[in-house]
Amino acid sequence: MYTAVVTVTLRPSILDPQGKAMQHALHDLGHGAVQQVRAGKHIEMQIDAASAEEAERIARQACEQLLANPVMEDFAVTVEQAEGTPAA
Amino acid sequence: MYTAVVTVTLRPSILDPQGKAMQHALHDLGHGAVQQVRAGKHIEMQIDAASAEEAERIARQACEQLLANPVMEDFAVTVEQAEGTPAA
Repeated sequence: MYTAVVTVTLRPSILDPQGKAMQHALHDLGHGAVQQVRAGKHIEMQIDAASAEEAERIARQACEQLLANPVMEDFAVTVEQAEGTPAA
Repeated sequence: MYTAVVTVTLRPSILDPQGKAMQHALHDLGHGAVQQVRAGKHIEMQIDAASAEEAERIARQACEQLLANPVMEDFAVTVEQAEGTPAA
């Protein structure tokens, strides 16, 4: 079993109203040092695969088909052996 | 200028309907190997601080005050020098 961590972020050219709202709220709380905030998604998947390479391939397909919008978003995938499971 | 990356995740005991929906959709797409999906937030902040330690302190305060719900969520913070900026 492998754990794939997927990070989906808006492309830099895309406006991020959620991040702007966080930034304004932080300014109102006194955190004027926070100059920019960008919000994205963090997705953890447990994948039953024969190797880390296969788990990464499945995770990338999941991003391309479902988890990320290729027009507006980029994604990054990291895979590691899940805790407490032997190598497949 | 420092870049703080915040990851906010639901505590393990909290049900995650968004993750369940992703998992079911992935099964429908043929990815039966995906055993569990948990959804969280990925937040990147540009922080104007005198040191990495100060930037991390600000980012942690932001999480405690605004970005994470302490009843249901955990958060992790990593800080690194922003690209293209000299050390403050």
